[in-house]
Amino acid sequence: MHVQIQTRTIIFETEGSNHILDITAEVQSVISTSGMQEGHVLISAIGSTSGITTLEYEPGLVLHDVAVMFELIAPYGKHYKHNQTWGDDNGGAHLRSMITGTSQTLPFIDGQLILGTWQQIVFMDFDTRPRSRRVVIQITGK
Amino acid sequence: MHVQIQTRTIIFETEGSNHILDITAEVQSVISTSGMQEGHVLISAIGSTSGITTLEYEPGLVLHDVAVMFELIAPYGKHYKHNQTWGDDNGGAHLRSMITGTSQTLPFIDGQLILGTWQQIVFMDFDTRPRSRRVVIQITGK
Amino acid sequence: MHVQIQTRTIIFETEGSNHILDITAEVQSVISTSGMQEGHVLISAIGSTSGITTLEYEPGLVLHDVAVMFELIAPYGKHYKHNQTWGDDNGGAHLRSMITGTSQTLPFIDGQLILGTWQQIVFMDFDTRPRSRRVVIQITGK
Repeated sequence: MHVQIQTRTIIFETEGSNHILDITAEVQSVISTSGMQEGHVLISAIGSTSGITTLEYEPGLVLHDVAVMFELIAPYGKHYKHNQTWGDDNGGAHLRSMITGTSQTLPFIDGQLILGTWQQIVFMDFDTRPRSRRVVIQITGK
Repeated sequence: MHVQIQTRTIIFETEGSNHILDITAEVQSVISTSGMQEGHVLISAIGSTSGITTLEYEPGLVLHDVAVMFELIAPYGKHYKHNQTWGDDNGGAHLRSMITGTSQTLPFIDGQLILGTWQQIVFMDFDTRPRSRRVVIQITGK
Repeated sequence: MHVQIQTRTIIFETEGSNHILDITAEVQSVISTSGMQEGHVLISAIGSTSGITTLEYEPGLVLHDVAVMFELIAPYGKHYKHNQTWGDDNGGAHLRSMITGTSQTLPFIDGQLILGTWQQIVFMDFDTRPRSRRVVIQITGK
């Protein structure tokens, strides 16, 4: 069978301020619906204050430890030049996004995402306010 | 139409020391020239002191805030074992590249890159001197 | 020639605690065996305490500098909520993996990976104990 490409977009509401959502089931659903058996899925968040990565989705990491790390690297607050430019307060959010990356590609075989047992695909909203977010899920496979 | 792959290389001069360049127009141009409508573009920098990511390309972030963050994580300076190995001064540049990543894949639909309004594709030169740089732009699509 | 996809898995033993392995030769071998000339290779580590990135594989960075950086960002130790949840000691390993990313895509042309002279593909085991690890290598090309 020839290699095909299919693109879908999912939309959801977030709370901001390091809100982390597990989107593994949505990604797997797009793969399953396509009927493709072998290939890769590109998960790409739209927006420069968001992130896509993998993480064990358990409360200790999701609600506490990740935030502590990012406060160390790129703290929220008002001392950024970016904030002075726009009167914003989300300079730290842009830096968190830049270093995490807004897209990730993962393989699937036999129609199933290949992830570790404790490894979930997460969307991170680093922005400082609730938002409506779009994530593109694009499958290349056969 | 069958899925196709096309590969181009762009070359440009950089100043080093965290020089950040907006390469979004170059990437979009490669997609537009290809005539492909749906697929993904891999942007891959050659060299272990470079980075590819997305960022809002405005002066506050580009000229100040990103540098402050990296000085915290992987400061420039002469205390690295890497520098002792080679007599170099770019150990911090290698670490910045390693954590940012040198490649990124992004989707396009209707022949257009899918990015947020304030989200640009950037090349980062972390090295400590001016260089000539090559970035591979590879499109997979139909 | 039509675009094809091939998927292989490599397995190896690691020592944990920031053990960094150069897997460039294994990735190139999968490309060479496939006979494909132009395309991209997705390298994806299975597990939420691992990382895939590129790095100059020399002892100063590999055995010392990378570890120093990660001790700054996400130190090993027992103060994480994740550790309290599971009685683990690898909260720092999860954070290192999350920020490094567990997969990377790189282009190849004329059957050869496109990397800088001093740029190798590395697997990072951030976990705190020796493990058997699997990495998926998936080629899309022609």
